Order: sequence, then structure tokens, then C-alpha cells
Amino acid sequence: MTPDSTSFARRLSVEQVEEGRELAPKFDAQGLIACVTTEARSGEVLMLGYMNAEALRRTIATGEAHYWSRSRGALWRKGATSGLVQKVEELRIDDDQDAVWLRVSVAGSGASCHVGYRSCFYRRVPLGHERPGNLQLEFTETHKTFDPAAVYGDAPNPTLL
Amino acid sequence: MTPDSTSFARRLSVEQVEEGRELAPKFDAQGLIACVTTEARSGEVLMLGYMNAEALRRTIATGEAHYWSRSRGALWRKGATSGLVQKVEELRIDDDQDAVWLRVSVAGSGASCHVGYRSCFYRRVPLGHERPGNLQLEFTETHKTFDPAAVYGDAPNPTLL
Repeated sequence: MTPDSTSFARRLSVEQVEEGRELAPKFDAQGLIACVTTEARSGEVLMLGYMNAEALRRTIATGEAHYWSRSRGALWRKGATSGLVQKVEELRIDDDQDAVWLRVSVAGSGASCHVGYRSCFYRRVPLGHERPGNLQLEFTETHKTFDPAAVYGDAPNPTLL
Repeated sequence: MTPDSTSFARRLSVEQVEEGRELAPKFDAQGLIACVTTEARSGEVLMLGYMNAEALRRTIATGEAHYWSRSRGALWRKGATSGLVQKVEELRIDDDQDAVWLRVSVAGSGASCHVGYRSCFYRRVPLGHERPGNLQLEFTETHKTFDPAAVYGDAPNPTLL
């Protein structure tokens, strides 16, 4: 057990993990757990992020979403730079406790995507294509909610190729 | 490039990946991409799964959700055993194209969780706890939608400790 996970329950049995009332999250080999974040009222998926034990603990303690930034290798209080803080309305854990679901209200413009859109999922993949290389993504948001250059300045883009 | 990914676009620039209309998904070191699945009408998060290139391609081609089962190490057409097929109403990709969002309608009882609940996220984590080891999870579903033993029989439980 790493020092970071000492405040969570140990995973002792499938029954405990699936049917019990103990929070016994499973962090992967990198010490991370996946986190789906949705807008509390609309149900729109805003982002898929990752938390380490400290980010999950701080999210529970403060009611504000914290993540682990894989690209920056750092704990990340969402909105620290942009002001677009995510207030957690509800936090859920899944059956095998290796994924978290946050239902949030977003401060300010309501955006959660570093590209400037409300949701990170601003493009649709059309269905029924046998050869996906030929399809064209469709944008589901027609304009950006904020100007990333104005908000983030020269900070490195977190998207990795 | 692996043979499995030849039908997707190559990832050439951040601008292409974030602002373009080409589907250029990023699979991780295990060849997988994370997938959030929500119920199309309610917005409820049903599950967080993973797809390999073949699962993503089949999902796009057929409009039925396919995943990669990490516990079984096999391609997994959701509902093949249980009948609880997920019809994809919409498929979206996120900004850096390393996560997929499926909006689905579920056949039969409408459940998606192997434990028998509708959603895999059937427990809430109460907020405001400085010491998460002491908190008690709260169930958000009061009864199971189906009996897992009747549906899956002696198949191994996919939850890993």
C-alpha cells in the first residue's frame, strides 16, 4: 500500500468491493483512477480525466474537482488557471471501484475544455462506416465559449500526439 | 502503426487532432481507448469501458457497442451473453481523441452492470470527509434489475482485486 492510499479501505474481496459500503478504489499501475465528469443538470459529458489518490481525497474533502494532469505530471485543481471551477454536486464510484463519476456545476462560462468548448466531446463520429478512415467528424458545438490563448497564454497545450 | 489501426487517420499535429474532421484516435500502450457510456435519454452514466481498435471500428460500423474486456482479454459485443445490447444513438470523440462517449439505448431490462444494477455507478460517495476511510457509500439504486447468477451462471466475475 502506498502512503497516498492509506486513507482508503483495502480491497479484500469481490463482495466487499461490489456490494459493500467501504470506499476501496483501485488505482492502476500509474496510481490513477479514471473519472467521468458530467454537467449535473444536462447530463452532458464534459470530460474524461484521471485522479491519483490525492486528487480523489481532495475532491471528496473540498467538493471541488481535482484531477491528476498526465501531460503536466501534476495535481490539478480544475479551474486554478481558467477560473472554471467544477463544484461537485454528486460523486459516484462504479461496481469494481476503478472509475469515478462526478456530476458538477461549472463556474463562469460553464466550459470545461481547454480548446475553448463547453464539453471536450464537441465532435460526433457518424455511424455506419465500414472504413472509419473515410468518415468526417461533425462538430456539435458551433462556437468556442472562451478564447484559449487569452486564458492560458503560453502554457503548453496538454494534447499529446 | 499496428495493423489494427490502419483504418484510422494518423496523428500528425495538435491542430489536426483538436480542430480537424479526421478520426485519429489515440490508443494507449495496451492498445486501448477509454469509453464513457451514458443512457441517451436520462444522461445517466452506465459504465466506463475500454475499446481496442477493432471494438471501436465495429461499434462505428454496426451501431452496437463493442468493448475490449480487460479481465477476459477478449473483444466483447455488449449483450452477447445477457441480451442487454446497447444501441448507439450517438458516438463522440474528445478534444485530444483519447476518449470516446457513447449515448446508448439498452435493450431488454435496460441494465448495463454485471452486478445486476442499471448503472455500474450505483453508489454515491458522500462529500466533505477529510478522512475517506471512515465514510460510508450510499446506494443510489435500491434493487437489482436482474439476477446475475441466472444470466451469467458460472462465468468468472470480471471484477479484479
